[in-house]
Amino acid sequence: MQDHSDYTVSIRYDRRLYLQDIAGSKAHAAMLAKQGIIEKEDADAIIDGLSAVQGEIERGDFPWDPALEDLHMNIERRLTDLIGPAGARLHTGRSRNDQIALDMRLYTRGAIDETVAGLRSVQRALVGLAERHVDVLMPGYTHLQRAQPVLFAHHMLAYFEMLERDVGRFADCAARMDVLPLGSGALAGVPYPTDRNAVASALEFSAISPNSMDAVADRDFLAEFHSAAAIAMMHISRLSEEIVIWSSREFDFVQLSDEFTTGSSIMPQKRNPDFAEIARGKTGRVYGSLMGILTVLKGLPLTYNRDLQEDKEGFFDTVDTLRSTLSVFADMLPGMRLNTDRLESLAGESYMLATDMADYLVGKGVPFRDAHGVMRRLCQHCEADGLSLSDLPIAEYRRFAPQFDEDVYAITASASVAARDNPGGTAPNRVAEGIARANQILLAAEAP
Amino acid sequence: MQDHSDYTVSIRYDRRLYLQDIAGSKAHAAMLAKQGIIEKEDADAIIDGLSAVQGEIERGDFPWDPALEDLHMNIERRLTDLIGPAGARLHTGRSRNDQIALDMRLYTRGAIDETVAGLRSVQRALVGLAERHVDVLMPGYTHLQRAQPVLFAHHMLAYFEMLERDVGRFADCAARMDVLPLGSGALAGVPYPTDRNAVASALEFSAISPNSMDAVADRDFLAEFHSAAAIAMMHISRLSEEIVIWSSREFDFVQLSDEFTTGSSIMPQKRNPDFAEIARGKTGRVYGSLMGILTVLKGLPLTYNRDLQEDKEGFFDTVDTLRSTLSVFADMLPGMRLNTDRLESLAGESYMLATDMADYLVGKGVPFRDAHGVMRRLCQHCEADGLSLSDLPIAEYRRFAPQFDEDVYAITASASVAARDNPGGTAPNRVAEGIARANQILLAAEAP
Amino acid sequence: MQDHSDYTVSIRYDRRLYLQDIAGSKAHAAMLAKQGIIEKEDADAIIDGLSAVQGEIERGDFPWDPALEDLHMNIERRLTDLIGPAGARLHTGRSRNDQIALDMRLYTRGAIDETVAGLRSVQRALVGLAERHVDVLMPGYTHLQRAQPVLFAHHMLAYFEMLERDVGRFADCAARMDVLPLGSGALAGVPYPTDRNAVASALEFSAISPNSMDAVADRDFLAEFHSAAAIAMMHISRLSEEIVIWSSREFDFVQLSDEFTTGSSIMPQKRNPDFAEIARGKTGRVYGSLMGILTVLKGLPLTYNRDLQEDKEGFFDTVDTLRSTLSVFADMLPGMRLNTDRLESLAGESYMLATDMADYLVGKGVPFRDAHGVMRRLCQHCEADGLSLSDLPIAEYRRFAPQFDEDVYAITASASVAARDNPGGTAPNRVAEGIARANQILLAAEAP
Amino acid sequence: MQDHSDYTVSIRYDRRLYLQDIAGSKAHAAMLAKQGIIEKEDADAIIDGLSAVQGEIERGDFPWDPALEDLHMNIERRLTDLIGPAGARLHTGRSRNDQIALDMRLYTRGAIDETVAGLRSVQRALVGLAERHVDVLMPGYTHLQRAQPVLFAHHMLAYFEMLERDVGRFADCAARMDVLPLGSGALAGVPYPTDRNAVASALEFSAISPNSMDAVADRDFLAEFHSAAAIAMMHISRLSEEIVIWSSREFDFVQLSDEFTTGSSIMPQKRNPDFAEIARGKTGRVYGSLMGILTVLKGLPLTYNRDLQEDKEGFFDTVDTLRSTLSVFADMLPGMRLNTDRLESLAGESYMLATDMADYLVGKGVPFRDAHGVMRRLCQHCEADGLSLSDLPIAEYRRFAPQFDEDVYAITASASVAARDNPGGTAPNRVAEGIARANQILLAAEAP
Repeated sequence: MQDHSDYTVSIRYDRRLYLQDIAGSKAHAAMLAKQGIIEKEDADAIIDGLSAVQGEIERGDFPWDPALEDLHMNIERRLTDLIGPAGARLHTGRSRNDQIALDMRLYTRGAIDETVAGLRSVQRALVGLAERHVDVLMPGYTHLQRAQPVLFAHHMLAYFEMLERDVGRFADCAARMDVLPLGSGALAGVPYPTDRNAVASALEFSAISPNSMDAVADRDFLAEFHSAAAIAMMHISRLSEEIVIWSSREFDFVQLSDEFTTGSSIMPQKRNPDFAEIARGKTGRVYGSLMGILTVLKGLPLTYNRDLQEDKEGFFDTVDTLRSTLSVFADMLPGMRLNTDRLESLAGESYMLATDMADYLVGKGVPFRDAHGVMRRLCQHCEADGLSLSDLPIAEYRRFAPQFDEDVYAITASASVAARDNPGGTAPNRVAEGIARANQILLAAEAP
Repeated sequence: MQDHSDYTVSIRYDRRLYLQDIAGSKAHAAMLAKQGIIEKEDADAIIDGLSAVQGEIERGDFPWDPALEDLHMNIERRLTDLIGPAGARLHTGRSRNDQIALDMRLYTRGAIDETVAGLRSVQRALVGLAERHVDVLMPGYTHLQRAQPVLFAHHMLAYFEMLERDVGRFADCAARMDVLPLGSGALAGVPYPTDRNAVASALEFSAISPNSMDAVADRDFLAEFHSAAAIAMMHISRLSEEIVIWSSREFDFVQLSDEFTTGSSIMPQKRNPDFAEIARGKTGRVYGSLMGILTVLKGLPLTYNRDLQEDKEGFFDTVDTLRSTLSVFADMLPGMRLNTDRLESLAGESYMLATDMADYLVGKGVPFRDAHGVMRRLCQHCEADGLSLSDLPIAEYRRFAPQFDEDVYAITASASVAARDNPGGTAPNRVAEGIARANQILLAAEAP
Repeated sequence: MQDHSDYTVSIRYDRRLYLQDIAGSKAHAAMLAKQGIIEKEDADAIIDGLSAVQGEIERGDFPWDPALEDLHMNIERRLTDLIGPAGARLHTGRSRNDQIALDMRLYTRGAIDETVAGLRSVQRALVGLAERHVDVLMPGYTHLQRAQPVLFAHHMLAYFEMLERDVGRFADCAARMDVLPLGSGALAGVPYPTDRNAVASALEFSAISPNSMDAVADRDFLAEFHSAAAIAMMHISRLSEEIVIWSSREFDFVQLSDEFTTGSSIMPQKRNPDFAEIARGKTGRVYGSLMGILTVLKGLPLTYNRDLQEDKEGFFDTVDTLRSTLSVFADMLPGMRLNTDRLESLAGESYMLATDMADYLVGKGVPFRDAHGVMRRLCQHCEADGLSLSDLPIAEYRRFAPQFDEDVYAITASASVAARDNPGGTAPNRVAEGIARANQILLAAEAP
Repeated sequence: MQDHSDYTVSIRYDRRLYLQDIAGSKAHAAMLAKQGIIEKEDADAIIDGLSAVQGEIERGDFPWDPALEDLHMNIERRLTDLIGPAGARLHTGRSRNDQIALDMRLYTRGAIDETVAGLRSVQRALVGLAERHVDVLMPGYTHLQRAQPVLFAHHMLAYFEMLERDVGRFADCAARMDVLPLGSGALAGVPYPTDRNAVASALEFSAISPNSMDAVADRDFLAEFHSAAAIAMMHISRLSEEIVIWSSREFDFVQLSDEFTTGSSIMPQKRNPDFAEIARGKTGRVYGSLMGILTVLKGLPLTYNRDLQEDKEGFFDTVDTLRSTLSVFADMLPGMRLNTDRLESLAGESYMLATDMADYLVGKGVPFRDAHGVMRRLCQHCEADGLSLSDLPIAEYRRFAPQFDEDVYAITASASVAARDNPGGTAPNRVAEGIARANQILLAAEAP
């Protein structure tokens, strides 16, 4: 029979939790001593020993042993080797079940901080783009069809808002998971006069978990993290899609810097937006890991089941994917050059002003739906004859509705944009408000 | 060629949004009049007409017309039929894009309220079970192996905590989506002096959406709702699994009432836990709809694309699944009878006390890992000879560790449970605290 | 307590299986009589009664009763009402567990036939497009960047191949599920001298299921159907994406007919490709239902569990989605008009010929990677000076490589395409081969 | 700015394809020479050089360079370093797009062979269990409720059938993907007189891909592999669930060998079925990777897009998961000991014979549904009085139906099982047929 021990061994990937595991153990040992459960000198030896272990790991000297299966046993064994019998007292009043629950929460907390920082840096890049191109008009799209002119800055701020919600989702996840599971034992609590609140405080948790059985069986916070990650990657996939489309010769809206494109080995003018494509593709693995953790948890009876070991690799992969992807976008966006002339020229296409002309008629007393009918007929007339609305003489206009006057020619892309002067609209002053609001959010986020 | 109009027609399912659509239109019309964009009498006619439309729908008299494709056009057309040209002014300053975004948010808000109420009712049922069986011991499981005795009430409260987090997730979703999208127009805002805050206030939104392009392209709130729903159904699937296992003859822990089981047509003593099985199965459709909406949104460029129409059916199905499933559990749990004698007898199995005996030795100065070694050898000895720990004479105990004394016989299931007297532990007073905490939460939830 | 019977009642959706249920019952009854298990006259009465029931259902006269929960009981009860005690003999030697397994297989078989017919009709449309535009050049894309000229027909045939694999997957699914489950009883087989092969033969199954426990617990065929459906919809989503992109003003490659676009209410020249967008969006629900059935089946112990009832709605939805979507594409594609002038003009862009020029140099003895280097420098030179390769004098060419000669000007889009004259390449004769092969496949598929 | 090159670099994971890449390159070079496209001596140098490269890789001496991004460039660069300019001719008439498509197909073909071998070994273990326990009765379950006695061997064979379908699905996938993509170039084919059929033959493909654009854009075979893998893991999850349940003290049906359980550190009699739990949990990652690849492919326009690079890691992970999991089961199942006495005693529980008694009555002329009614009343009577059907005097029986006679006592678990003597039923001779059939399949599979 083959050796199958690798099937259950987790040390290959759970060693990533070493900082969390050691921090948790130190806090636990200090509490045990303070409560008189172990001797002060034992606790001191444990804490010093754990620092030594951490040093070994960081220097690459730690004797990882797969035969000890997981991170916890590796560290505890090494600790005992280093400090003798005192090491054997560390595990008093805890279990691997509440220990791993603690490690995962600590790690997730850090991952959320890092992800939020990554989202913030992409937001900053978006606002930067908006600020640098605050006057640039472009066509706004529905159905990938030009619909109405908008400011490019307004388009960028739409993504700012998406990422702002992402930040909120990660923050909510962090707040909900902010409870210390340690002290839950294997499942039933521990028969020692531990002080869970002291440990919580030492590890900067706001509260302790209220039910030991739930605490060791719960991986909700991972499912929630994955959900937030999936939605964030979905946003990135939308932005990536736009960048890919905008980079096509046919659209020709933007040019990415060389660092973020790959030329053909032969056609250097071909600028493949590989980073945006890979980011769009990475949405798949993040969606997949969300489905993975939900599948793992489906139908699991209480409390701890070994299936839960499968909570780690997909999670770490998602954390890494968010980190690298957000970092790429934070650095790629600032170097994206706009083809301003083309954007503005397309924004001026007269058909996109038809809605404004209808509103013009409404302003002259024509009911909304009737004004729509006028403009539909006018546009059909122009299309049939290959005309542009802006070239049409006023007499022609009046054949469709007597309310038309010379001031109809004042309806331009700029005027159209300026007219959308309502909170959230694309008028320049509204977009300026949006930029100010965004900067305020970013500033507040930097505050200590 | 076949008629394909049904492919794009949504009226079969979006009519479910009629209350939201009418409420939104009334608020919009009132605002238009207040701002002087339409005449007061037109607004009054619109509002009265919409009330008439609502009456027709509720009485089943409304002339639904698939040729008009969607709910909005059906209502607007009927309104115009009823009140004449004034009806044609309702759509001033809005677009179907921001209108449907509004309808979906209003509906989701209601769905969240209803889901939270459903979760609360299941929580009440769980607390009720805990209170009625507050003293019942049972084996606590890890790996579906008996591990340590716990209180049945403690086990129920673990599910209370899971559902408490579910409530939190839905509440966070509600808070994040609490912005009015109306006023975003097709994508760029509207060229009328509308008062978006007034509409928000009339429809009880806390704020208005800050970016029009985002507002019409955003379906994050649905993805987030689906995520919260998937996690909630995962919890239900875990509870269902336990009920199915507990209902087996082999476990024989509980008996569901007849309303929630199906007998074989021939073996009436067979009590198939069909409701729990179906609930467990329905986890699939909810996970599926989450994956569905994420797939729809992947890689969509801004702003509105018709793909977004596919946001509805999976969502409505999930809302219905949550409603019915939570309602089933709220009613099924109170009627679940415990086989108390069996639970308590299994809870007393002596092997499950081995951990407590190790802790007993620790209390007498034996280091934790050494105490573990003693108990491991003792248990092996008993197993080899078919003995129970409780039957072992003290002399035998002492052969394994001299620290054993007569008081080792005081280690019983009750004593084990009582010893886990730490916050979150299974000791009776801690479980009483848990029940009190739960009741406080439920009470606070009922407060207006 | 609320009435929860609706939670387990399936008649709302499983009535869709009535034809399959009745066909199965007739074959079963006939076999029972042939084997002497029931009387011939009883079987005759049953078969006539079932025909009557079928008539009632088809005329809309059938008294559906939710209190009878499912289709089987509705039909059996009605049968007994119609023909008296003989009806009570129909269920001899079978169980609802093998009965529903049969119904689902029969239905799936039909659904596969229909889906394959749908795929064939889209393939025909693709070949039709290829044939009608057999000479049209267009740019071929990688990374949504123009890469090399290809024939439009070649591009269409790529989708033909994808759908050909889809046909294969559905056919394999059909072959694998082609076993009769009836005769498996509730789980253990039946204690009657039934003739399973006779029933299989009557219902046109090639074989009988070899294990009764597997037969009633198995829903693999649905998971496999969903997988094939997900991949097919993925193909449709790729084609839809291209149609959406090609319909943009910026690409302006194709124009869909009015039946398959929606104009803005005001900009009639806006041709939103709504059908393609909805098709792309419907990928979500099909992916979701695949994930749904996999989730339902995860971790289910043998044999029948009520979770399996959740196998139907997602499946029916996927069947309907395939039917309508394939039908839309079969009718939409033929009416798609190409903007041939634009396609051909873009196909002639000189940069896309850089690879051919490198191959030209290889033909003159330059190693492949070196030839690449030459062309890269040449292209950079042109780009810097805003030149086109085709405008460059031969002297300039020779500055980069002496091997260049006048015949370099013979490298055109047409020549490039013609040069790819290998099986599977885009050369006109190869594409003609592809069309011929496709037509052969379609012809063979129509053969009886 | 940070260095982001790692985001696009694939060498960390695609080096796993080195054997495939080298084999493909050798076949390509040989063909190029045979067709006179490159010199024979160049081809020889290339082939020898590739062998040298392979040796370096296998000895761990290869100078992997992330700056060269992917496997192909690493190998080509090293080749050129080793053999000089001839190396630069290898890439003639191919592109990385068709090269990676080839590598992935070759790798998948090997992965399928290995997976099928793994499935076969688990099947052998199942048949072995069936053979060794061919007479053992056990309760058969529906709804996790005892329903009818079955043979344990019959239960094992149910899993044999599931895995047989898995084998079929992987084989179908292999057959469908058995086409050589090389020769498709970047997307349009290649302008050299290559002989694609010769390469196909050298690499043991049955055919060549018929359309170059499809060939470089197609990852269907991966999606299909993932689907087959997801269904196979679903089967494993069902078996795992049963093993976990059977290993519980309450069921106590089986005992896994020590290699495949983990004891508590303190309760050695606790035998946690960790391997089965982890296998069940690993279903999540495989479902997730299926969703991942489907998400990647959704909505991708033709032809190659860099998103496709995301096809590898999830795929490799699934291949590894199948390998290790199937290997674990092949070794774990043979060592699973049955608690035969308990299984047989539960199988004899009289209520499970109620169906047989109903059939007994049918045999005496009572209509099926009426016989059911009798047995229902009889069972209710017994349950109310705490009686077993087997203890009931004949007079009592006759109070419920006069057709009962002394031979009713011959209805035992063994008799019940023996009576299900129809193809696929649980009667011993039918199960013997099943074993024979299974052995025949396994034998045929071993044939060369």
